[in-house]
Amino acid sequence: MSDTRIETDSLGEVAVSADRYWGAQTQRSIANFPIGRDTFVWGRPMIRALGVLKKAAAQANAELGELPADLAELIVAAADEVIAGDLDDHFPLVVFQTGSGTQSNMNANEVISNRAIERAAGVLGSKSPVHPNDHVNRGQSSNDTFPTAMYIAVALELTEQLFPAVTRLRDVLAAKAAEFADVVKVGRTHLQDATPITLGQEIGAWVAQLDEALAMVRAAEAGVRRLAIGGTAVGTGLNAHPDFGRLAAEKISAETGLEFTQAPNLFASLAAHDGLVGVSAALRTLAGAAMKIANDVRWLASGPRNGIGEITIPANEPGSSIMPGKVNPTQAEALTMVAVRVFGNDAAVAFAGSQGNFQLNVYKPVMVHAVLESIRLLSDASAAFTDHCAIGIEPDRERIADNLERNLMLVTALNRHIGYDAAARIAKRAHAEGTTLREAAIASGELSAEQFDEWVVPVDMTHP
Amino acid sequence: MSDTRIETDSLGEVAVSADRYWGAQTQRSIANFPIGRDTFVWGRPMIRALGVLKKAAAQANAELGELPADLAELIVAAADEVIAGDLDDHFPLVVFQTGSGTQSNMNANEVISNRAIERAAGVLGSKSPVHPNDHVNRGQSSNDTFPTAMYIAVALELTEQLFPAVTRLRDVLAAKAAEFADVVKVGRTHLQDATPITLGQEIGAWVAQLDEALAMVRAAEAGVRRLAIGGTAVGTGLNAHPDFGRLAAEKISAETGLEFTQAPNLFASLAAHDGLVGVSAALRTLAGAAMKIANDVRWLASGPRNGIGEITIPANEPGSSIMPGKVNPTQAEALTMVAVRVFGNDAAVAFAGSQGNFQLNVYKPVMVHAVLESIRLLSDASAAFTDHCAIGIEPDRERIADNLERNLMLVTALNRHIGYDAAARIAKRAHAEGTTLREAAIASGELSAEQFDEWVVPVDMTHP
Amino acid sequence: MSDTRIETDSLGEVAVSADRYWGAQTQRSIANFPIGRDTFVWGRPMIRALGVLKKAAAQANAELGELPADLAELIVAAADEVIAGDLDDHFPLVVFQTGSGTQSNMNANEVISNRAIERAAGVLGSKSPVHPNDHVNRGQSSNDTFPTAMYIAVALELTEQLFPAVTRLRDVLAAKAAEFADVVKVGRTHLQDATPITLGQEIGAWVAQLDEALAMVRAAEAGVRRLAIGGTAVGTGLNAHPDFGRLAAEKISAETGLEFTQAPNLFASLAAHDGLVGVSAALRTLAGAAMKIANDVRWLASGPRNGIGEITIPANEPGSSIMPGKVNPTQAEALTMVAVRVFGNDAAVAFAGSQGNFQLNVYKPVMVHAVLESIRLLSDASAAFTDHCAIGIEPDRERIADNLERNLMLVTALNRHIGYDAAARIAKRAHAEGTTLREAAIASGELSAEQFDEWVVPVDMTHP
Amino acid sequence: MSDTRIETDSLGEVAVSADRYWGAQTQRSIANFPIGRDTFVWGRPMIRALGVLKKAAAQANAELGELPADLAELIVAAADEVIAGDLDDHFPLVVFQTGSGTQSNMNANEVISNRAIERAAGVLGSKSPVHPNDHVNRGQSSNDTFPTAMYIAVALELTEQLFPAVTRLRDVLAAKAAEFADVVKVGRTHLQDATPITLGQEIGAWVAQLDEALAMVRAAEAGVRRLAIGGTAVGTGLNAHPDFGRLAAEKISAETGLEFTQAPNLFASLAAHDGLVGVSAALRTLAGAAMKIANDVRWLASGPRNGIGEITIPANEPGSSIMPGKVNPTQAEALTMVAVRVFGNDAAVAFAGSQGNFQLNVYKPVMVHAVLESIRLLSDASAAFTDHCAIGIEPDRERIADNLERNLMLVTALNRHIGYDAAARIAKRAHAEGTTLREAAIASGELSAEQFDEWVVPVDMTHP
Repeated sequence: MSDTRIETDSLGEVAVSADRYWGAQTQRSIANFPIGRDTFVWGRPMIRALGVLKKAAAQANAELGELPADLAELIVAAADEVIAGDLDDHFPLVVFQTGSGTQSNMNANEVISNRAIERAAGVLGSKSPVHPNDHVNRGQSSNDTFPTAMYIAVALELTEQLFPAVTRLRDVLAAKAAEFADVVKVGRTHLQDATPITLGQEIGAWVAQLDEALAMVRAAEAGVRRLAIGGTAVGTGLNAHPDFGRLAAEKISAETGLEFTQAPNLFASLAAHDGLVGVSAALRTLAGAAMKIANDVRWLASGPRNGIGEITIPANEPGSSIMPGKVNPTQAEALTMVAVRVFGNDAAVAFAGSQGNFQLNVYKPVMVHAVLESIRLLSDASAAFTDHCAIGIEPDRERIADNLERNLMLVTALNRHIGYDAAARIAKRAHAEGTTLREAAIASGELSAEQFDEWVVPVDMTHP
Repeated sequence: MSDTRIETDSLGEVAVSADRYWGAQTQRSIANFPIGRDTFVWGRPMIRALGVLKKAAAQANAELGELPADLAELIVAAADEVIAGDLDDHFPLVVFQTGSGTQSNMNANEVISNRAIERAAGVLGSKSPVHPNDHVNRGQSSNDTFPTAMYIAVALELTEQLFPAVTRLRDVLAAKAAEFADVVKVGRTHLQDATPITLGQEIGAWVAQLDEALAMVRAAEAGVRRLAIGGTAVGTGLNAHPDFGRLAAEKISAETGLEFTQAPNLFASLAAHDGLVGVSAALRTLAGAAMKIANDVRWLASGPRNGIGEITIPANEPGSSIMPGKVNPTQAEALTMVAVRVFGNDAAVAFAGSQGNFQLNVYKPVMVHAVLESIRLLSDASAAFTDHCAIGIEPDRERIADNLERNLMLVTALNRHIGYDAAARIAKRAHAEGTTLREAAIASGELSAEQFDEWVVPVDMTHP
Repeated sequence: MSDTRIETDSLGEVAVSADRYWGAQTQRSIANFPIGRDTFVWGRPMIRALGVLKKAAAQANAELGELPADLAELIVAAADEVIAGDLDDHFPLVVFQTGSGTQSNMNANEVISNRAIERAAGVLGSKSPVHPNDHVNRGQSSNDTFPTAMYIAVALELTEQLFPAVTRLRDVLAAKAAEFADVVKVGRTHLQDATPITLGQEIGAWVAQLDEALAMVRAAEAGVRRLAIGGTAVGTGLNAHPDFGRLAAEKISAETGLEFTQAPNLFASLAAHDGLVGVSAALRTLAGAAMKIANDVRWLASGPRNGIGEITIPANEPGSSIMPGKVNPTQAEALTMVAVRVFGNDAAVAFAGSQGNFQLNVYKPVMVHAVLESIRLLSDASAAFTDHCAIGIEPDRERIADNLERNLMLVTALNRHIGYDAAARIAKRAHAEGTTLREAAIASGELSAEQFDEWVVPVDMTHP
Repeated sequence: MSDTRIETDSLGEVAVSADRYWGAQTQRSIANFPIGRDTFVWGRPMIRALGVLKKAAAQANAELGELPADLAELIVAAADEVIAGDLDDHFPLVVFQTGSGTQSNMNANEVISNRAIERAAGVLGSKSPVHPNDHVNRGQSSNDTFPTAMYIAVALELTEQLFPAVTRLRDVLAAKAAEFADVVKVGRTHLQDATPITLGQEIGAWVAQLDEALAMVRAAEAGVRRLAIGGTAVGTGLNAHPDFGRLAAEKISAETGLEFTQAPNLFASLAAHDGLVGVSAALRTLAGAAMKIANDVRWLASGPRNGIGEITIPANEPGSSIMPGKVNPTQAEALTMVAVRVFGNDAAVAFAGSQGNFQLNVYKPVMVHAVLESIRLLSDASAAFTDHCAIGIEPDRERIADNLERNLMLVTALNRHIGYDAAARIAKRAHAEGTTLREAAIASGELSAEQFDEWVVPVDMTHP
């Protein structure tokens, strides 16, 4: 057993391990919420964001004369350590706690207070000279700080993780689209053979989907750039300096390099998290696009002999523990599994987002956790898919050419010359008799061989 | 304009069209809830169920001495007309109304009251000799009658619509499985070629899924065979005879031919509808199975020349307005669209089911509507898929044989003879060199041609 | 039986009722897809949108020399009748059909063709002088026209139904917020008493949520203003004039008064509907906001004697069939039921949106139907809630004042003067002893009565 | 850097840390799937289940003469260490990998092989005398072993975690229901005052919901007691002894103490996981019940002065970082947050469950992970809610009595005596005039004071 010291809160005394900076409320939360402890302890993004917030708050309060400069300096120094990740071991709480995140806010207050006290050569747990509530939490409530930290964390993760990873994927695919712009192949609608496209066009559609989804995420991100800070307990800003929220948002912007502002309606910013729901929804759209792309990739690569097989993808590992030599589209599988997880997370976020009452939504922790998880998974899976699959996509030109040649839907080019009905008769004849389209066309008497060769040119069918 | 008469309720007078049996509360609901009027008016199943319920209640009350026999007879006669569908035009209300279904319960009370009054040569709207509340609603509250009607409707629709339609589909598929039990073909895992199966086995897996899903729906149905009747306003049964609920359930059983009982905990039966959520979830599982089956069908039928093409399905309509001669797997598309709709309905039902407060869940109408819609759609789509697709599934034996012969995963049969590692080298060699597996095997020196022919027999690989 | 005429398509002859303009493919669809016929027949929005599209296409083709002016005029005239709603009875198809909407596209082609033929004194079914494929569908495929019509329908419904209805609700609430700006009341977080706010602020938060959600829907709407038109079968624009799509979008803009453009990537616009998924998600956020607001309303109005009871809402109908005199928050119930339905619809839309393959997503009909339903329900329910509930919200000033006076959380105002810890002791004392906060504060010795009266002023606590 | 050794698979050589038992395929997976590494590494339940499976397989193979007894013994000994948790550090893989779980199956094969080799004093990585594929994976494929392990893990977690935790909650609540059987209080429907119930009845409804939900989970569990083992690659059982699957299921039953059997259709057991979807759905129903219960608890405990306040719950921690003395229903918040997470997980599971193709569903890992997470969270949160909230629920008898006395819905007892209409007038009068119901009743002239006192007896209204 490690040594302990006594920490106190308004409910009384609590023993805390002597080598930990946290205080009474954190310790109570550990005891009261042993829920999913293995995997639901807050990670870097939220801890860092709480550090950013507490630092900015101290700076703003000092500037507004709400906090003595020396105390503010102590708080900032301790908060910098939180931001840097040096104190992660002092943030032991899990997601499933009070629905306002109060205990994690107090965890930050307590750790920063005690670390600041230590820096000032004070006594841990004495709350002096830096009090967790009166100083670190000055002009704040969990109700505004926790959602502020949530939004900081989400914005940083989007910026640092998601956008680069997904952008790299779209860039790699865009390069493939350009590289294969001349590969004319059969198009497919309803899973059935259709008129030709180029492989570049096919891959380009994936790029377009990623671009649109990324644009949606970026647009939605604006909703988490508006911070609840300054609203305190219920949105009125009680106990905060009137300029505190605005100024704290500026400090947060400076610290993170991302532009944040105070939310226009602070009441709504505590009582609801529609902006976060919007981000989650945009991530779901991105996941939906990823699922479409990954499905196309694995179907186009299906085979090796009895599938479509028009592209090949890297063989990264043995595919089967029983079937020797089998290679499977595992990166596509991982990406689509991530996609369904993101769908699930989004369902949870939207549900939680609808459940606010009066001045507070008390589903904050589960909401931000799910969104951060979705961001992490989409980022990681996009990177893995890029590196281990997309980068290695290659056409099987021979198979593509064979398929294209047999494609009865080339008949569509005849519509403009002989009309839909006559063209349909030719296609049906070729299908029924198992002949080429050219043979059936000529046999139909509707057109000559020369006309067929002039009118039915696959590459010409890939643009209007 | 039609003539009107004056109807009254506790809020005062309301003018009602003279040719309608409904009363003041129904009329108020029309005015107050103009929501989705085109498509959300209650249909046959709920109207019929309300009729069944009111008939049974009158019978039970009469038997218990709570209602004079003559009034009960009048109510039963009018309720029989409701059951038969003769009065459907007198049920104008929509789903989105009071969350307890009070207004639809009152709609039934009012219509039956007035029709009974008419039969007794009384004055419509006079509430005499048959009062909508004191007689038709005797010993009842919307809070127990509406969920009772909900469950009656769901149980009847399952029995009369879903079970026959899905059973017919599984029977048609089971016959196909038997018919094609000898068609050995390539198996596919990860969309990649795998060891052989028979087409009968492949289709048999669909039958097994339908059987398991049907069993789940049947098991879940038990949850809607336990009725809230007798709980009245909050579950205590206030104003109902102590034996009323039990007896009414017996009458409902007699009327419908399905066994119903009174719920063991009447408080829970008003405050929650977990049994209905369970039915919805089971329907979702059925929808998930349908999606898997329909996807397999359309992929196996993909082509005609550049897909898998191992089966053919009926060509029911021209597939494209621009591509002449195209035929698409449209029944599979309709069925999978139904599946996603059922998933959506289930999400709504489960959400609503979690939102009860104290003695009542006030999402009753939206819950039952969604479940009834899911039942209807799954029933209709199963029937259409059976008649216009499943019945016509035929193997393309030539293509199946060609595919099978090229399948490298036949190598798996060698594991037991030469070990996984050596077998893997042979498969990789054949793949790299584009040869047959037999050629690669012999070239490997690991086995003789005779051994290959003895060990690699596809049909033998389709059973242990 | 009505008389019939013979219509033909590439599969052969079909008998059609003589008094209907539709042709063979529509008739086949009726026979092949008897799924949910009672409630899933396409309504006005999609029929109108198909009319708009066909008119614009004819105009564009004529302008580009792709269609003789006289035929174009005939098509435009018939399409105008479709737009006006005069031919709704000639659109009998249901949602669950081919997943590209081909049959509904052909329904429009056939009806317009036959009506145009009739106008030209031709023979119905003769396809002359106006052919459904070669003329009405000129330069088009279901694959680009149906999603174009989908997006037109959604944009029009948003503009004409949703935005006005929700805006009116937010305006009514904003007026209430202004009216009650001076009503100081207890705030509530975690359902527990918290520091004061004004009723104006409380209602203002609802307005802010509606504003944010509306802004999201408007932003998302941009995603359905980019049309697939001109992509034809697979996105290449085969058989369309190169300028056709762009020009058709201009004509559609002119016809509807809404600005539409051709989608930047036509391949993606057929293969995915991420823009529509985005609209659905934004509607879900709006529904989530509506749920929060409606829940607040019914909780604040709870009682009449044993709830919170701080506001009153209109009593529109008797609330109970068994409890005399009961009045319930029925509009809130209808609105929240709509909200869960919208959540369910959105789940279906997002699922469907992820299921595209290659050049086509074949879940188009189910997607647009769900989105249109959500728009309709949110519009109708917002209007009903506005007219029958929001408009009548009034504070119960006496109860509000009583509640406020007893509120222990007024203690928070003391934090800045005596510190959090001392303030906490006072609040706990008052709670334990059942006294007023003032009594406990004075008894604590931490401050004088004068200081209490100076520092604890509820109205001052409603702003920073 | 740690020392390494060379491991091999069919793709070649890979360096593995010398102090790890895993082999080439595990190492490749680490490199290829760096996705969510912080929180998605498999935990105890799946590792243990893989150990159980491999042990049972070795035993079955030995008994059937498919594996030499000495090798089987080595495998069993190593598998026992896996079961015991001694080798958890040798299972480094994450959920997002190949969709069949092949790499985790190989992880188990490799670790057990190398540990067995070590026990036999062989050379790690030599695959001799115990080969990971030919011996540890004997008669198996990832396609049947991984779902077998999935189901073992889920069944064990349900049995060992969920059922005890939820049963304890229902028992604690049942004891409370019995204890408070005599506490008559106001009922509430539509959040509005309704006829009386007892607190025992109110809490008893929660017990009934938990009982029903538990019964659903138990019924659904049958779906994961049927194992895929013996199906090998595609369901045919290729390379497995015909009796292997049945016998392995017996060995698994013996090892776990739970009854498992071989699935009746092995093809379906690889291609779909409808049984697991059923478990997930049942957990969702349980979560929905938990949400209803937790919401009731926090609403009944709302206040302390301006809410309903009919019960008190334990004050476990300071509730607010800014509002001194505030106590919040934090356990209810944690439990409802868990509920929404379970809803989200279930959405992911059902989605994934619908996405199988041909002979395999490749969403296995994400499905089982989500279900195991739901089980863990519901178990943990139920335990925390029991210990820190439910156990301490106490009625505020004074407040309950006050509320009851003011309750206008006591009027319902008059229906049977004076009719609904007259009763309604009395209730409305009392409401309008702010009097007691008794006063209004007497003033109405409809009944005498004596009659009122005889007829309106709240406790009599709590049973029929």
